[in-house]
Amino acid sequence: MALYILGLGLGSLDYVTLGVLNRLKMCSEVYLDSYTSFISRELLEWLEKELGEKLKIAVRKNLEDNIDEILEKAVHRNVAILVPGDPFIATTHISIIVKAREKKVDYEILHGVSAYSAAPSITGLHIYKFGRTITLPREGDPKEVYRVIQDNMEKGLHTLILLDTADGGLTIPEALIKLLSVEESLGRKILNEDSLAIALVSLGMSNQLIKVGTIRELLSVEYPPPPHMLIFPGELHFTEIEILIKIHGAREDIVRKYRPPRYEKDRTLNYITKTRRVLKELKINEDSKHVKDVLEIAESYVEDSYSYWSSGEIYNALATIAYAEGLLDGLRIVGKISFKW
Amino acid sequence: MALYILGLGLGSLDYVTLGVLNRLKMCSEVYLDSYTSFISRELLEWLEKELGEKLKIAVRKNLEDNIDEILEKAVHRNVAILVPGDPFIATTHISIIVKAREKKVDYEILHGVSAYSAAPSITGLHIYKFGRTITLPREGDPKEVYRVIQDNMEKGLHTLILLDTADGGLTIPEALIKLLSVEESLGRKILNEDSLAIALVSLGMSNQLIKVGTIRELLSVEYPPPPHMLIFPGELHFTEIEILIKIHGAREDIVRKYRPPRYEKDRTLNYITKTRRVLKELKINEDSKHVKDVLEIAESYVEDSYSYWSSGEIYNALATIAYAEGLLDGLRIVGKISFKW
Repeated sequence: MALYILGLGLGSLDYVTLGVLNRLKMCSEVYLDSYTSFISRELLEWLEKELGEKLKIAVRKNLEDNIDEILEKAVHRNVAILVPGDPFIATTHISIIVKAREKKVDYEILHGVSAYSAAPSITGLHIYKFGRTITLPREGDPKEVYRVIQDNMEKGLHTLILLDTADGGLTIPEALIKLLSVEESLGRKILNEDSLAIALVSLGMSNQLIKVGTIRELLSVEYPPPPHMLIFPGELHFTEIEILIKIHGAREDIVRKYRPPRYEKDRTLNYITKTRRVLKELKINEDSKHVKDVLEIAESYVEDSYSYWSSGEIYNALATIAYAEGLLDGLRIVGKISFKW
Repeated sequence: MALYILGLGLGSLDYVTLGVLNRLKMCSEVYLDSYTSFISRELLEWLEKELGEKLKIAVRKNLEDNIDEILEKAVHRNVAILVPGDPFIATTHISIIVKAREKKVDYEILHGVSAYSAAPSITGLHIYKFGRTITLPREGDPKEVYRVIQDNMEKGLHTLILLDTADGGLTIPEALIKLLSVEESLGRKILNEDSLAIALVSLGMSNQLIKVGTIRELLSVEYPPPPHMLIFPGELHFTEIEILIKIHGAREDIVRKYRPPRYEKDRTLNYITKTRRVLKELKINEDSKHVKDVLEIAESYVEDSYSYWSSGEIYNALATIAYAEGLLDGLRIVGKISFKW
């Protein structure tokens, strides 16, 4: 006798696996998790018909509250927990197997198709160019999500944003407005109404919708109800550009000219440009060998910084340019040279 | 009539979806991609039995070479391409739908369970703590993979490494030896034989194996044949530590003391410590107000740097400490102060 933790896939009947079908037949009780994700009406009706009395809909967090009871049952009969998507992509259910192991209850896990892999796949964006994924919560501070987008863009990577599924689900326009408000407060110039984004609705269901456009455009679309997701692209490969235009109907002018903003990279180049100008314009007040030495060192650090910058080594570029600035400011403050930043 | 691009899942019969089953029945020709991934003997035999003459095994790159021919066929009858995992997680097949669209051939895509989501899921590691994923190729330079691990660790993120599936598949020991050799040449102290890693073999198949341990331990394991994968953990949450120990049998002492190396963060702290020491030990050769000004500025930059460092803003921490070093070196070279780094 065992506990089966079964991934139900993207929420339509198409994504039910033979493994799940097979395990459901063996189980005398089936708990459907209906709070971490969405499933289609068609799939719910099919489950009700197939499982009849065996099906229990677990609302809110009661799956977790009742887990001891479910584990007790799994000692004597086969019990299943059905989870939309993949069982452990949402972290909610991981503790169940730890408890099962502690209570020496046998368990088996079957994975389901997750939006975490289906979203990159359906867009045609390259999987190895995605950075960290994050969920935008309905309540609470959206700054963390903004920072993840910024970090990913810094490296030219795409960002998948899962939108909160609680209370009917956060919508794409609600999410975009939240993120624009962070931009306004942090001012890092990562997102504005002209930024490129990809809206994804109801992946794998009959009302699936994928829309590529500027935030302004995406704000004005009428979307089917959640689940909604967003992708903020990083650097686009030419094959990715081709797919966004030819398959997803993106406007060619917007996608072709798109470059992800790179806050630290741009800032470092500004420092380099500014320091190069200062080295050209500065006035030497005391023409000694030591002063010349410092200026020569500063100059070589500026050029090193530019080489690092060009090869993408931004940490090294930033360290060397800041050091050169320090050298010049030290001399300026003690009166050996004069210049303005 | 249409082209069906169908994800076959993790490679065992359990992961075939009802959607795939249904489409296969409608198709008169089915091309199985057998070169980008692995499927079990059991699944292959099932496909042969179900599909009979309709099944064509596509070896090597001939799926791509014959794609025009397949698209021609799809104008008049239903044709399927079966792809292990999810169709577009490997980038190979994305160009097919662009061609289909150009030739006005209808197509439908069904996602499959991908190792890209199943691997994080089965380990119990939190999905939103994974950084960029990358494939370690059999031939060519493994440095890029090493750099991705380093970048992810810098932010405390986990790294999933897919191992090349060509020519029988790259094995975990082969991959670990490649990565240790990069460590030897770059010397960034990211990986050594005591580093923690997770070995994943044949996810979703009957010989699935997950092994958590040091690289030294993982090098000495006898593995079932590929597909193999590796995960290098970042910062571990206590629930992740619990699962690695209780579910995957990791040694408690190794997992509890594990911290991902953070090259830039450690380096910046070294600079801060060194500059603090210099500020204490330096000898002032010319006790002027200007020299005092510079020293005060340097001191405040060192403390700013430490605050940035503590709050995880490593770019700002690095910029401010390098600037402070420059200030001090400028004064030292023109003889106003003396010290040794």
